[in-house]
Amino acid sequence: MIEKLAIIGVGLIGSSLALALREANAVNRVTGFGRNRSNLEKGVEIGVLDDFETSIAETVKDADVIVVAVPLGAMGQVFAELQPAVNERTVITDVGSAKGSVVEVADKILGPLMRRFVPGHPIAGTEKSGVEAGFASLYQNRRVILTPTEATDEDATEVIENMWKSCGAVIEYTTAQHHDKVLAATSHLPHMLAYALVHQLSNLNDHEEIFRYASGGFRDFTRIASSDPVMWRDVCIANGDVLVKLIEQYQQELNQITAAIKSEDADELLRLFGRAKSERDSLIGNC
Amino acid sequence: MIEKLAIIGVGLIGSSLALALREANAVNRVTGFGRNRSNLEKGVEIGVLDDFETSIAETVKDADVIVVAVPLGAMGQVFAELQPAVNERTVITDVGSAKGSVVEVADKILGPLMRRFVPGHPIAGTEKSGVEAGFASLYQNRRVILTPTEATDEDATEVIENMWKSCGAVIEYTTAQHHDKVLAATSHLPHMLAYALVHQLSNLNDHEEIFRYASGGFRDFTRIASSDPVMWRDVCIANGDVLVKLIEQYQQELNQITAAIKSEDADELLRLFGRAKSERDSLIGNC
Repeated sequence: MIEKLAIIGVGLIGSSLALALREANAVNRVTGFGRNRSNLEKGVEIGVLDDFETSIAETVKDADVIVVAVPLGAMGQVFAELQPAVNERTVITDVGSAKGSVVEVADKILGPLMRRFVPGHPIAGTEKSGVEAGFASLYQNRRVILTPTEATDEDATEVIENMWKSCGAVIEYTTAQHHDKVLAATSHLPHMLAYALVHQLSNLNDHEEIFRYASGGFRDFTRIASSDPVMWRDVCIANGDVLVKLIEQYQQELNQITAAIKSEDADELLRLFGRAKSERDSLIGNC
Repeated sequence: MIEKLAIIGVGLIGSSLALALREANAVNRVTGFGRNRSNLEKGVEIGVLDDFETSIAETVKDADVIVVAVPLGAMGQVFAELQPAVNERTVITDVGSAKGSVVEVADKILGPLMRRFVPGHPIAGTEKSGVEAGFASLYQNRRVILTPTEATDEDATEVIENMWKSCGAVIEYTTAQHHDKVLAATSHLPHMLAYALVHQLSNLNDHEEIFRYASGGFRDFTRIASSDPVMWRDVCIANGDVLVKLIEQYQQELNQITAAIKSEDADELLRLFGRAKSERDSLIGNC
């Protein structure tokens, strides 16, 4: 049982965590902090939070677990504000979509508290934001990746592992570096591709008509382009080197397709699409 | 009431059409033709077809309406086989994802039957294929675009409009050329982008692990990469000029993102993602 959970940044991820832990009777009190007061008030109203504070120091006081769920660019500031107020047994985790940059900034600011810091990333979410977007089943059977550092205490890691398990999640361990490489491919790159497409079409003269003809396939394909721009701006900065390499590699794929279309190389197009389909069907399922 | 409907190519689209027309009591008999006999037998078994024939000529004999639902590359062959067997009152339509190439090939082969040809494209589908993938509600509130030519009889167009309306679809009229321009943006381009991503990731060394970490967002984003490779090969060839231009324009968008990431231009990234999000949210809805 977590006696007091402090959530810094109460959006979809933190709100869903609170609701899931409540449903599992795995938390007693949930305190929130965030820049938007009406969002916090809403959080109390809908039962996500028990209360909220107006400073990070007050929020994290005597907490068993602190979950930092702010955009990557705001992590440093949050760590700096919580660092003096945290006691030695409190465990700190985060939910950032890139891990290398978080570990780097934590290492600079948290000092000896690095023993109590367990970097984490739940592979779950929707394109929605805000406390009202949360729901208790978000983490059911979803992966949570933990990337403890060499400094991290084993018992701290255990606390975070148990917390996520209470939400129905499956825990995986890896390094921050490996996490960032894998997630760049399955998450960061696709987000760039979706944003780029919608941005491109927005610039076409007849874009309103074009969107009117959009099918269910287009809706699915572009869903992640409705994600929070601040979060994704920060992911780009945090994991830029890996991401740029993948985008450049992706451009080669497009060059290959363009060349095949231009030369009407039907066999090459069939090979390429067939390979993609069979790979997706076998590894993700045709759904 | 359509007394006899002939479907050439009984996949998701033709099968759903038959089921929807049956549900609306708008068809009496549905006859199918296709290359795969077991697919046709399955069609009879599950009530999509009343019967099937082993030649196109037999299938279309005395039909009120012929729906050609084969990949674009097979249209010419089908038109050539049905042309001598069709009587003057039969109305012919197709469901091809590109319209310019179909009109061109029809014009060469159908001759005076062009009066009875109503090119069409239902903007509906799933990534599934085959007769068993069909379902009666596929066209409910979905758009069907008709692109009758100057030669098309008005009463023929009316028959096809009524047929799709019986399935719950909303009819739009435009030219083949305009159709191909709009659909290249909302459908053909996204399919290329999804195929390219899955193909790229398939070539990474640790691709099995990478797919294992895929989220719901990745699943949605890549869903269209599970579409039929033959169909999409043919779309590329049929609408290649428009598509290549859009891919090249898309690459400029990626260049813009890459440049902003490299220079850590946070404002530019936020502007770009924010523009895409607000455009999608307002024109498609945040869902």
